Amino acid sequence: MTKKRLTRLRTEMDKAGIDIYMMTLADYHMSEYVGDHFKEIEFISGFTGTNATMVVTHEEAGLWTDGRYFIQARQQMAGTTIRLYEEGTEGVPTVLEFLESHLSEGRTLGFDGRLFSFEWYEKVEQLCDEKKAFLKTDENLLDAFFTKRPPLPEKKVWVLKDEYSGRSVADKISDVREAMEKYGADAFLLTSLYDIAWLLNLRGDDIHCVPVFMSYIYLTADSCILYASGQAFDVPLKKYLYDNGVTLHAYDKIYTDLNSISEKRILIDPKVVNSELINELPSSVTLIRAENPTRLMKAVKNPVEISNTRKAHLEDGVAVTRFIYWLKHTIGKEEITEMSAADKLLEFRKAAPDFLDVSFDTISAYKENAALMHYEPGHDHEIELAPEGMLLVDSGGHYLNGTTDITRTIVLGPVSDKEKECFTRVLRSHLRLLTAHFPKGVCGANLDILARGPMWDLGLDYRCGSGHGVGHILNVHEGPNAFRWNPKNPDDLVPMVPGMITSDEPGLYFEGEFGIRTESELLVVPDQKTEYGQFYRFEDLTFAPIDLDAVIPEELTQYERKALNAYHADVYEAIAPLLPKEEAAWLKEATRAI
Amino acid sequence: MTKKRLTRLRTEMDKAGIDIYMMTLADYHMSEYVGDHFKEIEFISGFTGTNATMVVTHEEAGLWTDGRYFIQARQQMAGTTIRLYEEGTEGVPTVLEFLESHLSEGRTLGFDGRLFSFEWYEKVEQLCDEKKAFLKTDENLLDAFFTKRPPLPEKKVWVLKDEYSGRSVADKISDVREAMEKYGADAFLLTSLYDIAWLLNLRGDDIHCVPVFMSYIYLTADSCILYASGQAFDVPLKKYLYDNGVTLHAYDKIYTDLNSISEKRILIDPKVVNSELINELPSSVTLIRAENPTRLMKAVKNPVEISNTRKAHLEDGVAVTRFIYWLKHTIGKEEITEMSAADKLLEFRKAAPDFLDVSFDTISAYKENAALMHYEPGHDHEIELAPEGMLLVDSGGHYLNGTTDITRTIVLGPVSDKEKECFTRVLRSHLRLLTAHFPKGVCGANLDILARGPMWDLGLDYRCGSGHGVGHILNVHEGPNAFRWNPKNPDDLVPMVPGMITSDEPGLYFEGEFGIRTESELLVVPDQKTEYGQFYRFEDLTFAPIDLDAVIPEELTQYERKALNAYHADVYEAIAPLLPKEEAAWLKEATRAI
Repeated sequence: MTKKRLTRLRTEMDKAGIDIYMMTLADYHMSEYVGDHFKEIEFISGFTGTNATMVVTHEEAGLWTDGRYFIQARQQMAGTTIRLYEEGTEGVPTVLEFLESHLSEGRTLGFDGRLFSFEWYEKVEQLCDEKKAFLKTDENLLDAFFTKRPPLPEKKVWVLKDEYSGRSVADKISDVREAMEKYGADAFLLTSLYDIAWLLNLRGDDIHCVPVFMSYIYLTADSCILYASGQAFDVPLKKYLYDNGVTLHAYDKIYTDLNSISEKRILIDPKVVNSELINELPSSVTLIRAENPTRLMKAVKNPVEISNTRKAHLEDGVAVTRFIYWLKHTIGKEEITEMSAADKLLEFRKAAPDFLDVSFDTISAYKENAALMHYEPGHDHEIELAPEGMLLVDSGGHYLNGTTDITRTIVLGPVSDKEKECFTRVLRSHLRLLTAHFPKGVCGANLDILARGPMWDLGLDYRCGSGHGVGHILNVHEGPNAFRWNPKNPDDLVPMVPGMITSDEPGLYFEGEFGIRTESELLVVPDQKTEYGQFYRFEDLTFAPIDLDAVIPEELTQYERKALNAYHADVYEAIAPLLPKEEAAWLKEATRAI
Repeated sequence: MTKKRLTRLRTEMDKAGIDIYMMTLADYHMSEYVGDHFKEIEFISGFTGTNATMVVTHEEAGLWTDGRYFIQARQQMAGTTIRLYEEGTEGVPTVLEFLESHLSEGRTLGFDGRLFSFEWYEKVEQLCDEKKAFLKTDENLLDAFFTKRPPLPEKKVWVLKDEYSGRSVADKISDVREAMEKYGADAFLLTSLYDIAWLLNLRGDDIHCVPVFMSYIYLTADSCILYASGQAFDVPLKKYLYDNGVTLHAYDKIYTDLNSISEKRILIDPKVVNSELINELPSSVTLIRAENPTRLMKAVKNPVEISNTRKAHLEDGVAVTRFIYWLKHTIGKEEITEMSAADKLLEFRKAAPDFLDVSFDTISAYKENAALMHYEPGHDHEIELAPEGMLLVDSGGHYLNGTTDITRTIVLGPVSDKEKECFTRVLRSHLRLLTAHFPKGVCGANLDILARGPMWDLGLDYRCGSGHGVGHILNVHEGPNAFRWNPKNPDDLVPMVPGMITSDEPGLYFEGEFGIRTESELLVVPDQKTEYGQFYRFEDLTFAPIDLDAVIPEELTQYERKALNAYHADVYEAIAPLLPKEEAAWLKEATRAI
């Protein structure tokens, strides 16, 4: 199938006069997760990971992805002629380096300009200039034969009331206009779906597990135009927009509208705005390049979001704790598969009255499957669990009160010494980050080694950040806050400030053996203020026991042990009152001090 | 005295039509330590710290310095009208912010342009433009009344032979020319005294404890002009320069020579080159701004420098160990003062055949004096030591084989529980950094929290980096490598690579009580290479016992304890064979496993 589609793509390249064609797993908004409409790379290559870029020439086809997906990509593309380029591995060329070595005078590089950021476009444009090559970005070659491409979604949009959003649309728009003024911008072109949903206190259902809606915003000092499908807005919602000073235009109309704007200084985030939009702007426009000011505003949760998120985590903690109890008491007695375990967890989550949806597809990965960091169980490859080894469950929920993301690796029976040692090491990493205290100004990049240190000591590591920001009923992955010693995006080097919520999720992954991850979510809160300034610390928002069956107590330091016991005491205090009696009794034991 | 001199300065300001006058403790090369010729701020204010900037208006006089000197500056300027601005403290304006609030239309800001970097000049020039104020940088107002200003030094220059430098001048110049080519530069204006000494394998004696000589270099593809005093070069040295293709011009001649250069693209480091030099360049010149390429080359020690430095540290370790033995066995029996202790340490160092000089003035600080991070003992304030409390000794030597820098805080008798707790905490910080393992790419900014974490946990901190690079028979403080979570200079965000030597010197300082610092020097060396890439670790170059009399073993984690014991075993193995028998026996006990 792959071979046939690749051949067809090359035929289309010939027709269009394109020598090198690029695809990427993106939508017109640079969303992390995208609708099925945009799954061109899966269509061509069979690879289903959430990060992929492909470059096809007449002789070669390459696919780039990151460390979370190396094992999965190898498996899914086995037997194809597509070569896997493991991003970040020494000696592996980047996409840009590949293009540099393949572009030459007179050759033409093509891609759909709506699917690539303006930042990327400019880099490639410069490269083509240097190489005297041509660039063609107004055509999508897949359209000719990806005929079953699903249409763009236009699901119903709904309002997140102020009691849940914590800040009115008027106030948020006023904050953004203040930022525009600071940049001297007449207009702000906002294309990030998360930021639009946040700004308008609206949610949708256009991306699986990410409650946003396909849209653009063009904001000036006295107008706010929302480009979105009219189908998605019912009459009360249209009134809501009107009341908030928002004018609704058709989604696609933005491309023509931008031709004739009168504003001269437009604020855009070149990392997020797609290149086709910029190419539509009149040449008289001056671009003011900056990170979307909404990004940091959204990342710093307001007091309502914070107190609601605490409630959501209590509900989520009850669900996960009940799930762990159920799993440990049912394994070996009834048939359980990775998939049925995930379904059971969903059942527990659904018991919460304000549960909306999972915040991402549950990763329920048994034994060696857990070495695939973003493994997804499926009905087509049902794996039965046995009373031995460990099940890694990484899951989360959207609640009306907030969004959760939690990983626990659960012991189902006998585990090896190596598994215990690794589980304990992951736990040490997790606790070291959780218990950090730091002064104002410190970034996630400064803190990351707390989590990675115990891995690095052994020449081990994990191929992802130690943690990511968490959206509030939005994308479960959100920036700029993160725990990464070497952020790809310099905009992400921002100080940790109170209100930011970031996951703490170190792990260890051994291909063909097992995978372990322990993840909670950390809220930055004020610590003491001393002559050395204002200090901050983390509040652990997540409440579920960490499996003591795989912990080697002697390997924890006295400080780590104290932190673990304190955390478990908190879990018991918070969750036990909300559990049936038997489960509460079990939790007492599961959270015992060691 | 201060009052009279300030009044006189204001008179000179009037004469010159200057409303705001700036001084800074710098020379024409932005050296960290400067000759007495440049000690204008000490002359005006009495403050003797090594970092100071002053701004004087008719109404106000302010002095800015960093956290190492807050206590000292307060003491030395007590009773003057000069206000201390504590850099980095919340709410304290920076020099630039102060200027911004004091400059206004028609006012004139003045300073000696040779004493300020071009980077600073440009910032101030922009500020003056915005404020419609004037800038005057061609006059030094102190010249009129700082009549006892010592002349510029022109001490004898000497050659560091290839067997000590490890790389020939020809090879080094060729490396630099390669870097110039990469930048597309026709010429390179090098004004850093350390980099010039390194490049030419020459050393001098023009700055106290820093064996450099006053000079500039103007390097092109086929010529190398050294601007320096002819007095400093004897005949064989002049031949050495000739043999290496170096032309010697008079030191001051550079200012006029630059008027008439024919090269068009000049590489300069705007942080280091003084603004007057740039103002002399023809207007047709294009400046290529980059960090001096020599800076990183010099920081990564070559194999000869590394193996020689190891030898120097053995000699230095013997001296420090013998000193500690002497101190602990003499205290309470003979009179010892801070100053006489420092003299005794020098005596031990001088026993090494290739000892050249101390690498900085020894900090020998008893009890509360040690809270002044850069305290200097003096014959004018002789402090006697008693068999109680602790003596902090931070010292180092230049040897023909390399440069050392070591701090040990030594217990002289009974110490309080607080002192022990703090000593143990500093030790934990020190060990956590020393035992780090990290992959290629990691910077000092990523590692700093290992040292600071135990302090931050209590809302404590120290007002300096956790460590600095160390010059090779040059300035004991050298960049770009350092352990600082928030480097002031973004050029300092460089990965740690094998060959870099950086100090590891966390401390705790309580004004009026005591100060503790434990410092060793760490060489980056390769660790294992795994599927996660090349890892690095540190080799501790420093050999001297850490005083177990102030350690609370239970507060160390099992990992820290193991690291301490391993270090002490290394110290015993390396140093004991080089000690007299009695001292070796004592060292056995002083380095016992705990």
